[in-house]
Amino acid sequence: MIHPGTGQPVTPDMLDPLFGRELIKQEFSTERWIEIPEEVRQILAQWRCTPLYRARQLEKALDTPAKIFYKYEGVSPSGSHKTNSAIPQVYYNKLQGIKYIATETGAGQWGSALAMACNHFGIESRVYMVKVSYNQKPYRRALMEIFGATVFPSPSDTTNAGRAVLEKDPECTGSLGMAISEAVEATVTHPNTRYCLGSVMNHVCLHQTVIGLECITQMELADAYPDIVIGCCGGGSNFAGIAFPFIGRMLQGKEKIRAIGVEPAACPSLTKGKYAYDFGDTAHMTPLIKMCTLGSTFVPPGFHAGGLRYHGMSAMVSHCMNQGLMEAVSFPQLETFAAGVQFARAEGIVPAPESTHAIAGAIKEALKCKEEGTSKTILFNLSGHGHFDMQAYIDYNAGKLKNYAYPENEIAMALAGLPNVKG
Amino acid sequence: MIHPGTGQPVTPDMLDPLFGRELIKQEFSTERWIEIPEEVRQILAQWRCTPLYRARQLEKALDTPAKIFYKYEGVSPSGSHKTNSAIPQVYYNKLQGIKYIATETGAGQWGSALAMACNHFGIESRVYMVKVSYNQKPYRRALMEIFGATVFPSPSDTTNAGRAVLEKDPECTGSLGMAISEAVEATVTHPNTRYCLGSVMNHVCLHQTVIGLECITQMELADAYPDIVIGCCGGGSNFAGIAFPFIGRMLQGKEKIRAIGVEPAACPSLTKGKYAYDFGDTAHMTPLIKMCTLGSTFVPPGFHAGGLRYHGMSAMVSHCMNQGLMEAVSFPQLETFAAGVQFARAEGIVPAPESTHAIAGAIKEALKCKEEGTSKTILFNLSGHGHFDMQAYIDYNAGKLKNYAYPENEIAMALAGLPNVKG
Repeated sequence: MIHPGTGQPVTPDMLDPLFGRELIKQEFSTERWIEIPEEVRQILAQWRCTPLYRARQLEKALDTPAKIFYKYEGVSPSGSHKTNSAIPQVYYNKLQGIKYIATETGAGQWGSALAMACNHFGIESRVYMVKVSYNQKPYRRALMEIFGATVFPSPSDTTNAGRAVLEKDPECTGSLGMAISEAVEATVTHPNTRYCLGSVMNHVCLHQTVIGLECITQMELADAYPDIVIGCCGGGSNFAGIAFPFIGRMLQGKEKIRAIGVEPAACPSLTKGKYAYDFGDTAHMTPLIKMCTLGSTFVPPGFHAGGLRYHGMSAMVSHCMNQGLMEAVSFPQLETFAAGVQFARAEGIVPAPESTHAIAGAIKEALKCKEEGTSKTILFNLSGHGHFDMQAYIDYNAGKLKNYAYPENEIAMALAGLPNVKG
Repeated sequence: MIHPGTGQPVTPDMLDPLFGRELIKQEFSTERWIEIPEEVRQILAQWRCTPLYRARQLEKALDTPAKIFYKYEGVSPSGSHKTNSAIPQVYYNKLQGIKYIATETGAGQWGSALAMACNHFGIESRVYMVKVSYNQKPYRRALMEIFGATVFPSPSDTTNAGRAVLEKDPECTGSLGMAISEAVEATVTHPNTRYCLGSVMNHVCLHQTVIGLECITQMELADAYPDIVIGCCGGGSNFAGIAFPFIGRMLQGKEKIRAIGVEPAACPSLTKGKYAYDFGDTAHMTPLIKMCTLGSTFVPPGFHAGGLRYHGMSAMVSHCMNQGLMEAVSFPQLETFAAGVQFARAEGIVPAPESTHAIAGAIKEALKCKEEGTSKTILFNLSGHGHFDMQAYIDYNAGKLKNYAYPENEIAMALAGLPNVKG
């Protein structure tokens, strides 16, 4: 991370006003293993280990020789993998005596996980929710409110960052980048408050690796090992969670895998972005991070996978991409919903719009196996259920959803504005 | 069961046009154990054994010496215990070569479970959904439609039974009794079609006992045994599922328990109903069943726990009530939602409105323990999650929900019209 003012590397103490201290340590850590605290383990154990399923019905429907496995993170109380990081983040802040936490949320999965965690530890939560999702998903908001969170539609008029956007465009539907700006501002302008981020950061990716680590043990029990590991990519923690433990083994000279990140065609930071230093947010309040980016001023169109509407990508995932340790592929919205419905009919679980991207990726690889007559083992991260996204399915079934064109000009413009940093 | 025309007992062959043959055998069976078929086991095994949780946070919040356990059935793909019966019911019909299944649903939990099961076995499903829920819960309907079901709001204009109701009251919000009439009519007027019922019948209660049987094993692992077993009561299969295995042991001279059925104060068949022969439906197409009933023409008010809006009660549960093997208690709507929110905040899971009744019952007993200074072990059935009922929580939090007055006159009138049968 680089300080945008000085051009010098960010040091841990600079992040102190923003993040819990233990989390900053984790962010900068070079340790291979960091122990999960006992109190965090006890909470996670309510639903972890999450199930690893063989998608036998989907295999049958696709008539593929591939073996498809999926890790189902939707069994967590908030319905997605996000609780894996929300619980430890709030736990460490609580240890430090923090009383308030501000955060952003896209589709609301992170927001509900954080609200649930804050409620558990008796901390007040303020959630800036991307406006398009705030309107599309009132039940997500209701879930956060049940857990005692205060939820603002972002851009909101409660921060300078939000007001600046609204002044230019009162109809702005928001983006994760904007919501991050607002949450960061709300943090530094309120006492005894820290910021929590649901993806992107190293410590978030770290917390999520519990997914892949469990998978390794579970695949062993099933006497199998994946040839291909797939996760959807928004900020990157979903993909990192399932793929990093496998990539780690590969780097140690153990089993080779193909790791595939799947992103929306209308917000394709890995497949079309630039690997460069950029701001993590729209209002440029964060440090500069080297990442695959579409430009911090790019506002992704309002497709339903709100958790994937982010201009950038985790530095660690971007690094993997740059090092050739992973591949990336993108799908337009309609193809991901078609994959989601096919999956639901086969396996009985209605997936979150974000997770349908991983499913589309898995189906593509399974069909390639069929074409080539090879039997590969495919593992993907079914990161959450779609119970709070039913309106999207209703619209899809009614033919009301559309594919968003690749926003070429907007991205070119945003990329032209990248900060000038060497690195 | 008694034939309403002849006054004679119903024989298995009379039910043949309505139900799958194996299910009829189960309905009349006097066997103590009926094996779960291997193919059914394989499907159920995707999410069973369901978790049994100790409600440590709720205990803390209540400051009670009681130990509270809950069995969480919401991890099933359709989000409730209903899949336990939907899978075997559709399986047996499939074996028999049935192509279409008609059913009714209240809140939509049974409908989604049945739609999912039908989709799995390649059978077409037609679901009559109580109109108040059809309007209150569009996402439940969407879930059924994703699984390929055709969903009608009941009363509908697709059956004589529905049209007759609509003629008298075009604004009628429906009831389970009416929806049953429509589904039964749709069954007998269509070829190669059978009817499936989500509760009430012996075979449905039988299928649900997997819940209590698992609890016995799980409680053993936790080195505990319940003093009190609690389930909510609509048609009765939810309560039967968790309580019958424990009642069975008690009848064998093993551990004594108190089994408590919890029902809505506005539809209190166990606490205020009459134990008498009555029709299972509104249009009087079903046999007469001896049960605790409020009268088959009683239309419960439109409270949110749609799965509990039924005038009658499973014959087996009614028999338990009559024999003093169980107790019953009722709660008004606001108290159940308060219990639901308290539970969600403590345990992280937002419960279905039906399940909040069981929670309210458990909280009442736990508080009694606190008052008396006794440490009882309480087990309740958390039969489903509330992800499709968030509007109800939004309305509750906004102060828009109300308690429905006990509909004394309507029930008295309905009871006055009970058929004149000795038994």
